[in-house]
Amino acid sequence: MKDLELQLKTHFNITFENQELLETAFTHTSYANEHRLLNISHNERLEFLGDAVLQLIISEYLFSRYPEKAEGDMSKLRSMIVREESLAGFSKFCHFDRYIKLGKGEEKSGGRDRATILGDLFEAFLGALLLDKGVETVRQFLNKVMIPQVEKGTFEKVKDYKTCLQEHLQAHGDILIDYQVIDENGPAHAKEFNVAIFVNDKQISQGKGRSKKLAEQDAAKNALNNLL
Amino acid sequence: MKDLELQLKTHFNITFENQELLETAFTHTSYANEHRLLNISHNERLEFLGDAVLQLIISEYLFSRYPEKAEGDMSKLRSMIVREESLAGFSKFCHFDRYIKLGKGEEKSGGRDRATILGDLFEAFLGALLLDKGVETVRQFLNKVMIPQVEKGTFEKVKDYKTCLQEHLQAHGDILIDYQVIDENGPAHAKEFNVAIFVNDKQISQGKGRSKKLAEQDAAKNALNNLL
Repeated sequence: MKDLELQLKTHFNITFENQELLETAFTHTSYANEHRLLNISHNERLEFLGDAVLQLIISEYLFSRYPEKAEGDMSKLRSMIVREESLAGFSKFCHFDRYIKLGKGEEKSGGRDRATILGDLFEAFLGALLLDKGVETVRQFLNKVMIPQVEKGTFEKVKDYKTCLQEHLQAHGDILIDYQVIDENGPAHAKEFNVAIFVNDKQISQGKGRSKKLAEQDAAKNALNNLL
Repeated sequence: MKDLELQLKTHFNITFENQELLETAFTHTSYANEHRLLNISHNERLEFLGDAVLQLIISEYLFSRYPEKAEGDMSKLRSMIVREESLAGFSKFCHFDRYIKLGKGEEKSGGRDRATILGDLFEAFLGALLLDKGVETVRQFLNKVMIPQVEKGTFEKVKDYKTCLQEHLQAHGDILIDYQVIDENGPAHAKEFNVAIFVNDKQISQGKGRSKKLAEQDAAKNALNNLL
């Protein structure tokens, strides 16, 4: 914890008044469960709070940054910014992964590198920061850590699920991804398409939508959800 | 608008600096669309912001009010508190329904009484209040309007979907609601149950889950989503 405190001070000029809060933010359930007799708090409640303050600050930022964007577009962009994999990346960027306390089983199975754990950790840290310092300090922290990435347009590029799936699947070499309409229902004005994705001739997901394009995006989204 | 301003002043001691914001919060898309040439702003972007500040304030409240509740329980309670029908009720409680500007079609078809419109309106008002006065004023407003209802336990009672569905369906007299397992798959340690709900012998929804009980709750939830 001393190393973490030093790092927060050095990089972000943050010193926690209540160090127990900080410790709780960096304690995974698996660690608390392993030391049940000590009655240690874990970070799930702080994550609940952190998620909410993160949503608000990103929403305020998007609202003022993009005065012309419709609500639906802001929502999409926000969900890309605050999604688990993105938050896990910010956790690593801040070296938070070094300091989280995990149970032995979780540690062994690679929990220190797992997106769910690191994403939750980032939110839990924000929750602790909110309680210790208030919403303005959380905003300043996010302005340093997250907003520069948003400004770069990192998240706007990821709005297309098909592209995202392709990049993911082809990361280790070429793979044949095939989208096929497997079903088509309804009258002309209210069609529903069912699309399946085949990877090297094996079906990996299905999706549906009012157009072939929408059904393909839905199938790619489902595939990504299964894979990630 | 003058009446609305007077009411906000009288009941909540709120006077907007930026009256355009207040006006935008009370302008439904249908009204803006009908007067497209005037280039009037509608309340969807403010709703986006209001939703986020509402989530944060309710989260902070639940976190400090229930120090023993697990994250999952706080999440459930929060989603009951901020759900559309609940927010529509608060809109009416504040008489906001009197002041919203609707398009003619929307007005004719009963939009002034519609839960989606009134729920969104409540959020849009919170968004405008956040921009005009900051998060503390929003908190004070919610402390007056929403929190007393939460304290009464109004929302904790609604956590069971089956009960909720029963109350909804039997509001106008007795109705036979029958839950039937229609399918059961998988090995003993990973069973999946499919349950259908029949109302007066007509199937109204299905749900699935790892136990009969969970599948029933899922089916009731789906039925409520279809009905409400």
